[in-house]
Amino acid sequence: MSPFTGSAARTSPWRHLDVTYADGVATVTLARPERLNALTFGAYADLRDLLAELSRERSVRALVLAGRGRGFCSGGDVDEIIGATLDLDTAQLLDFNRMTGQVVRAVRECPFPVIAAVHGVAAGAGAVLALAADFRVADPSARFAFLFTRVGLSGGDMGAAYLLPRVVGLGHATRLLMLGDQVRAPEAERIGLISELTDEGGADEAAAALARRLAQGPALALAQTKALLTSELDMPLSAAIELDAATQALLMTGRDYAEFHAAFTEKRPPKWQGR
Amino acid sequence: MSPFTGSAARTSPWRHLDVTYADGVATVTLARPERLNALTFGAYADLRDLLAELSRERSVRALVLAGRGRGFCSGGDVDEIIGATLDLDTAQLLDFNRMTGQVVRAVRECPFPVIAAVHGVAAGAGAVLALAADFRVADPSARFAFLFTRVGLSGGDMGAAYLLPRVVGLGHATRLLMLGDQVRAPEAERIGLISELTDEGGADEAAAALARRLAQGPALALAQTKALLTSELDMPLSAAIELDAATQALLMTGRDYAEFHAAFTEKRPPKWQGR
Amino acid sequence: MSPFTGSAARTSPWRHLDVTYADGVATVTLARPERLNALTFGAYADLRDLLAELSRERSVRALVLAGRGRGFCSGGDVDEIIGATLDLDTAQLLDFNRMTGQVVRAVRECPFPVIAAVHGVAAGAGAVLALAADFRVADPSARFAFLFTRVGLSGGDMGAAYLLPRVVGLGHATRLLMLGDQVRAPEAERIGLISELTDEGGADEAAAALARRLAQGPALALAQTKALLTSELDMPLSAAIELDAATQALLMTGRDYAEFHAAFTEKRPPKWQGR
Repeated sequence: MSPFTGSAARTSPWRHLDVTYADGVATVTLARPERLNALTFGAYADLRDLLAELSRERSVRALVLAGRGRGFCSGGDVDEIIGATLDLDTAQLLDFNRMTGQVVRAVRECPFPVIAAVHGVAAGAGAVLALAADFRVADPSARFAFLFTRVGLSGGDMGAAYLLPRVVGLGHATRLLMLGDQVRAPEAERIGLISELTDEGGADEAAAALARRLAQGPALALAQTKALLTSELDMPLSAAIELDAATQALLMTGRDYAEFHAAFTEKRPPKWQGR
Repeated sequence: MSPFTGSAARTSPWRHLDVTYADGVATVTLARPERLNALTFGAYADLRDLLAELSRERSVRALVLAGRGRGFCSGGDVDEIIGATLDLDTAQLLDFNRMTGQVVRAVRECPFPVIAAVHGVAAGAGAVLALAADFRVADPSARFAFLFTRVGLSGGDMGAAYLLPRVVGLGHATRLLMLGDQVRAPEAERIGLISELTDEGGADEAAAALARRLAQGPALALAQTKALLTSELDMPLSAAIELDAATQALLMTGRDYAEFHAAFTEKRPPKWQGR
Repeated sequence: MSPFTGSAARTSPWRHLDVTYADGVATVTLARPERLNALTFGAYADLRDLLAELSRERSVRALVLAGRGRGFCSGGDVDEIIGATLDLDTAQLLDFNRMTGQVVRAVRECPFPVIAAVHGVAAGAGAVLALAADFRVADPSARFAFLFTRVGLSGGDMGAAYLLPRVVGLGHATRLLMLGDQVRAPEAERIGLISELTDEGGADEAAAALARRLAQGPALALAQTKALLTSELDMPLSAAIELDAATQALLMTGRDYAEFHAAFTEKRPPKWQGR
């Protein structure tokens, strides 16, 4: 527990998500398999709040986001979100869309790596959740569809028009966001949308293995690597190099850097403390 | 016709371009096949002015840019542009280069998707016009060459040094812009420079089909998707997510979003109005 | 020699680098093969100072960076850098990390193309040096590893978290910087990290050939192409297009542009003067 934790309560249970913890890894499972894990207002809110709680606690060193049943996530529920938003007023519409964007910001800005374990459908907001993750571990059944224009909305939802060009390039991103066509696993791997392609049915296990590896690693170094990747997309080269220098100077005063050198000298594996 | 149209005349005919309209699709053909559609001062000016007129009218929902004859476009004409610019003074040189840049800005900022139909040569300014388009539909004869350094000029012409790294990555972009070597269709597809590779001779037809599909789609949603893709290249993540939220909230008040839900509920295809 | 050279002495010899000149090409060889060309404080300082000297002299038109022996560069020396930095104070740590960043800035900002000739290991700072180059000419033995997290440090070292996403996309960059795993030549080529893949043992020769080709080219046009590629990563589209217009107008007043037209008209190859 971080000393910078105040009075805020720890939520349990999360009513709209299935959350488990083991060995520094949080596993968050979208668990409405009868609706292909379609998202609801509650699921978005829980994702936003869960990531905020985990970010301040510092007990979690990696997070897996997975989907139960036949697919990862089919996006916003047609009734509970699309239907419901038709009755919202202007302020509520903005609140809703800010909330979904806050989930993506939280995924990009939380101080631990997020691994999406994708099988089957990752559509709409489900595709963007996977896109926002640091790693997309997918099996051959995975298919991504940024189908916002198919429902009359902008393809730039929850940061997709910012993130996708930076992951697959502007040409592919334009095609995917404008047309909303399905991208199957082989193409997704070819264009850089998949981080690790597994055997059929192997995404959850491979994501868990990657999360364990990361959780056992030098947590502070990994957190800073993520923070720099995220923030340097928005910085000029000169500022990025200055930020790198300050960050690396800081980490060179840390325990893990000294531990690496001691372990190397003693010809043993390092014991990372994450500080 | 948009209510925000004033006194400005509609130009007809365009003397330096072949322009036709059908079903919301404008087809602009570079039509100097005897010179491989080399661009002239007049062709650049017409492209700039045509895109400005079409952007304010709102009658066009997709635009195809194609080349007649053996290739797409061989770039600036050696005599009518390179030769002529040697006699220009400083102010005229700046005016000329600003004009060519305005064409690229107009392609990126017009409120409808632009599809380049590429066969044969797309060289120099022709390669940049294709690069600026939202989609590059190309057949196996397509070959791109950013050959500016071959004529003693900077590879950063008309936004190429901005756009190309964002489409194919900085490594490929450096190679292409510095060396000016030809990139044939298989490599262009591999590095993300081609959106859709067709059969031999099939680029014009496939581009027309894609344009019809887009023109029949939810025009406002597509226009916003394009606007966000273009502008979020230049925004930090936090601002992009705020822009997405405001845009999506706006579109959720639109007719097409309600139409999607009604159509889905009634199990029929949506009838998009583009508003 | 540029007229804008003042009193500053030209260094010779460089004690920590092997530097040769021929036909406008500088070849800089990391030459501690017994340590896989591991970098020392002195090597970093010499790279920084050498690039500054060459940038003001204007006699060099291309630079090859190569490694002697079994590999390109294994990164910072475990004893002479990692061990030594453990004894530095806060100000010294910042100075060291600023120096390494200055090398990368110098590679990106020097007015001539830099070609990394990579065989065998390019690890840690060695991988970032190659990444910062304009071209990576590599043979099949090349293997890149951004292994900073393996020593308890941030993957964002010397601009890597800025550059790598812009070369290979955010997904691959996250994987490479977080995990520090080795990327072998076939994958490196597939994701855009290699500019030119040669036959076994052919990287040095191919890099030299490319450098000669570039050195014989229109040097000012090439320098501006590089400067625009570097600076337009950090500029919005509208500003980039304005910069392109001003740059191209300037180059259209230069000798090489007129020479191209004369040579074309006379059906002979142009004789570039680089001005």
